[in-house]
Amino acid sequence: MQYLAVRAALHIAAVFAIYLSAAMLIPAAVDLYYGNDDWQVFAFSALFTGGLAIGVSLATQGRAPVISSRFGFLVVNLLWMTACIAGAVPMLASSVEFSVADAFFESVSGVTATGATVIVGLDSMPPGLLVWRSILQWIGGLGVIALGLFVLPFLNVGGVSYFRIESSDIEDRPFDRFSTFGLGLISIYALLTLACAIAYAAAGMRAFDAINHALTTIATAGFSTHDASMGYYADNPAVLWISTLFMFISALPFSILILFAIRGRLDALRDPQIRVFAGYVIVFVLAVAVYLRIVHDHTFFDALTHSAFNFVSIITTTGYASDDYSQWGAFGVAAAFVAMFLGGCSGSTTGGIKAYRFLILFKLLANGLRRFVYPNTIVTVRYGDRPVDDDLQRAVVLFMSAFLVIWAVIILLLAATGLDFVTAISAALTGLTNVGPGLGQVVGPAGSFAPVPDLAKWIIAFAMLMGRLEILAVLVIFTPVFWER
Amino acid sequence: MQYLAVRAALHIAAVFAIYLSAAMLIPAAVDLYYGNDDWQVFAFSALFTGGLAIGVSLATQGRAPVISSRFGFLVVNLLWMTACIAGAVPMLASSVEFSVADAFFESVSGVTATGATVIVGLDSMPPGLLVWRSILQWIGGLGVIALGLFVLPFLNVGGVSYFRIESSDIEDRPFDRFSTFGLGLISIYALLTLACAIAYAAAGMRAFDAINHALTTIATAGFSTHDASMGYYADNPAVLWISTLFMFISALPFSILILFAIRGRLDALRDPQIRVFAGYVIVFVLAVAVYLRIVHDHTFFDALTHSAFNFVSIITTTGYASDDYSQWGAFGVAAAFVAMFLGGCSGSTTGGIKAYRFLILFKLLANGLRRFVYPNTIVTVRYGDRPVDDDLQRAVVLFMSAFLVIWAVIILLLAATGLDFVTAISAALTGLTNVGPGLGQVVGPAGSFAPVPDLAKWIIAFAMLMGRLEILAVLVIFTPVFWER
Repeated sequence: MQYLAVRAALHIAAVFAIYLSAAMLIPAAVDLYYGNDDWQVFAFSALFTGGLAIGVSLATQGRAPVISSRFGFLVVNLLWMTACIAGAVPMLASSVEFSVADAFFESVSGVTATGATVIVGLDSMPPGLLVWRSILQWIGGLGVIALGLFVLPFLNVGGVSYFRIESSDIEDRPFDRFSTFGLGLISIYALLTLACAIAYAAAGMRAFDAINHALTTIATAGFSTHDASMGYYADNPAVLWISTLFMFISALPFSILILFAIRGRLDALRDPQIRVFAGYVIVFVLAVAVYLRIVHDHTFFDALTHSAFNFVSIITTTGYASDDYSQWGAFGVAAAFVAMFLGGCSGSTTGGIKAYRFLILFKLLANGLRRFVYPNTIVTVRYGDRPVDDDLQRAVVLFMSAFLVIWAVIILLLAATGLDFVTAISAALTGLTNVGPGLGQVVGPAGSFAPVPDLAKWIIAFAMLMGRLEILAVLVIFTPVFWER
Repeated sequence: MQYLAVRAALHIAAVFAIYLSAAMLIPAAVDLYYGNDDWQVFAFSALFTGGLAIGVSLATQGRAPVISSRFGFLVVNLLWMTACIAGAVPMLASSVEFSVADAFFESVSGVTATGATVIVGLDSMPPGLLVWRSILQWIGGLGVIALGLFVLPFLNVGGVSYFRIESSDIEDRPFDRFSTFGLGLISIYALLTLACAIAYAAAGMRAFDAINHALTTIATAGFSTHDASMGYYADNPAVLWISTLFMFISALPFSILILFAIRGRLDALRDPQIRVFAGYVIVFVLAVAVYLRIVHDHTFFDALTHSAFNFVSIITTTGYASDDYSQWGAFGVAAAFVAMFLGGCSGSTTGGIKAYRFLILFKLLANGLRRFVYPNTIVTVRYGDRPVDDDLQRAVVLFMSAFLVIWAVIILLLAATGLDFVTAISAALTGLTNVGPGLGQVVGPAGSFAPVPDLAKWIIAFAMLMGRLEILAVLVIFTPVFWER
C-alpha cells in the first residue's frame, strides 16, 4: 500500500463526509418544522462534521493514485467507516442521552441497513433523530446496491453483476454506461421509496411514519418510528402487505429494475437467482402460515399475513416485526433462525448469504456429486446461460467458510461478555447478516439491544460492518499483504 | 448402476453381517458368565442374523463386478446400514423394552460411534446389552478409521490419507501394503484399547466398567455403563485424565500410529493437522478452565480437569460428560456449541468438520485474500510440503457447504416434530458431527434422547449416519446419476 493511495482514499472519504454533513440539514429542518429545539443539534453536527471533512479533504488533496484492487478495498472500508462515525455525531450531540457505544451501535446499525436498535422509547423521540436514523439506512441501502453492482464484482469478491453477467452488452464506453446506470439506480431507488410512502399513507399511516418507513423499507433496513416496530400497525393488514411487497421488490437485483426503467426490457427477470429467492420465500411463508393456522388457531388469512410479513422481513434482512415471533413455538423460532441466513438477490439492499450463492453452491454440489460417480467428467458450472468463472466460484465458497468461522468467533466473544446462549448465537447471526432483531427475550423482535453490555455492542457493530461488506472485503484489510508497499 | 454391482454389494454386506452375528456371541457369553437369562436373546439374535445373512450371501453369489467409484459408495453405505440393522436386532429381542425407533436409534448411535442414548437406567441394564453397545461402537470406530484411511480418499470424498499424502512411499505392490497397514491398524487399535482398559482399572474402575469404557474411549464414541456417564467417576481425577489422554490419542491420524508401530518412525507427527487440532484443543480447554476458575470458584486443578475432560470429549466427538456443562453459564455453553463443530484429525475415529478441513480452508482463505490484492498471482495450496489437489480442495468446500445446508434442514425437521429451539439446533448438530449429547434439559449431557418423539429419533439417526459417512458419501446415493446404467 502506497502513501499516495491512503491519502487519496482519505480524500474521497472526506468529500463523502461533506455530503453527509449536508444531509444532516434535513433532520434539522424537520425538527425546526415540528418546533423541536434539537434542530440546533443537527445544525451544530453539520457544521462540525462538515468543517472537519473540509479540513481533511484540503489536507489530503494531491495527485490521483494508480487505481488498484487494494485502493478499491481501502476506499470501500473507509467510506463505510466514515458514514458510521458521521452518523453517530448527531446522536452524541443529541438531547437524548447516548453513550459512545450506543451512538456508534445505532449509527452502524443504520449505515449497514441492519435495523437493530438500542433505543427504547422511539414513539417519544425528537422527529429529527427519527428522520436521521431513516436517512442513514436509506443512504446505506443505496450504497450497498452500488457496491454490489459496480464495485465488488470488479474486486472479485462476488456479486453477480449485470456488467459481468451480460458481458455481451458491454459497449466501448463503459464510463458512459456507469453514469447512465448510476443515475438509473438513484432514480429507481427514489421512485420506489416515493411509491412506497404514498402506498403506506393511502393505507392509513400518518405522513411522518409513511416517509420514515418507506425510507427503511426500500433499504430493507428495518428501523421503525415505534418501539413495537410494524406491530404498531398489526391490525392493518393493508400496511403489512404493502410493506411485504416493497421489501420483496427491494430484495430483487436492482440491475433488473434499472434495465426495465431504461429499456423497458423485462427479460432480465429470467435471472435464475430470482427463482431461487422467490422459491425459498414461498416455502418459508407457506410452511409457517400452515403451522400458525394449525398450532395457534389463527384464521388462515391472519396466519398468512403475519407469516408473509415477518418472514419476508427476515429473509430480506429488513428486520421489521409485526409480532414477537420468538413466541411462535418450536417451528416458528427454528424457521426464523434458519431464515436469518438466507438474504435476497445480489445487487439488492439485502444481506445474508443470498440466493445467487445458494444457487452456485447447489450447482457446485451437484457437479461434485456427479464427479464422484464419473471422476473424469468435467462439468462447467453455469449461472443461467453463462459459465461461472473460477474467481466467482472461489469467492462463494470462501464467503461460506469465512461466514461460518467468523460467526463462531463472534458467538464466543459475545458469550464471554455474559450474553446467554440464544442471545449470543442469534445476535451474532443477525448482526453478520444485517437482519436486525435476534431471538429470545433480550434481542428478539419484542426486545432491544439496550440491555446488552457495551463491549458486546462494539462486537455486534463490527459484525454488522463485516457482514455489510461481504466479510471478505473487510478481512482483506487485516492481511499483512494488503499493507505491503 | 448395474444389477451386477448391486448384487455384489449385497453379497459383501451379507458376509459382513455373518461376522456381526458371530460378534453377538460375546455379549451372550458375558450374560452367561453373569448368570443373566439374556444370553438367550443374544444367542437367538446371532442365529437369526447369521441365518439370514448366510441366506442372502448365498443368494447373491456370482461374478465380481467392475470396481468403480459407484460400487465403492454403494458398498460403504450398505455396510453401515447393515451394521445399524444388525445392531438393533438384539435390542428388539431383549428383555429390556425397546420400541423400533429406540432400538434403531441406539444401534445407529453405536455403529456411528456417536454415543447419544435413549436408555435411562443403564446402571441396572443386563451386562450383555451394555457390552453389545460398547462392541458396536468399537467396531464402528474401527470401521470409520478404515473408511478414512483406505476408502474415502480414493473416492475423492476427502480425508488426507497417508497413501495420498506420502505418495512417494507408494511401492509397486499396493495390496501387500494394504494388508500390512490393515493388520497394523487392527493391532494398534486393539493394543490402545487394552492399554486404556488397564489404565482405567489401575485408576480404580471395576473391570467391567474399565473394559466397556476402554472400548468406547478408543472409538471416541461415548457410550457409558452409567446414566451419569463419566460423572460416575467425577471424584476420581485419575480416571478423567486417563480418559482425556486416550480420547486425544484416538483423535490423531491412525496412519501415524501405524507407521510408528511398523517402522518406529515418529516424523509423521509433523502432519500439520495435528498442530491445528492440538491448537484448538488447548485454546478451548484453557479458556473454559480460566472461565470456570473465575466464575464458578473451582480450584484451578478442578477447573482444568473438568474443562479438559469435557472439552476433549466434545472436540473429539466422544460425548462423555463428567458434569452438566449445559449449566456452566453463558461462555461454557457457547464454547460447547462451537466445540461441537470441530472434530479431530482425518483417519481417526472422530467426526465433525475436522482439523485438516480447517487447515485447508484457512489456506484457501489466505490465498483468496492474497488474490484480491494481487489478482494475477497463482498460489498453490499446500498441506505440509505437498500441494493439495483440486479434488481435495473441492471436497473440503463442498463438505462445508453441504454441512451447513443439511444442518439447517435437520433443524427445521426436528423443530416441526415439536423440539424446542436449543434442543433442535444442538441435536441436529451433535447428530451430524457424531458428538452425542446436545444442549439443554432434554438432550444435554445430563439428559437423554428418550423423551424425544419417535419421528425426531429417526431424523437424528439419519443425521448420525450422514455425518459418519462425511455427508457427501450419502448424498451421492440420492442423485439420479448414481443409478444410471
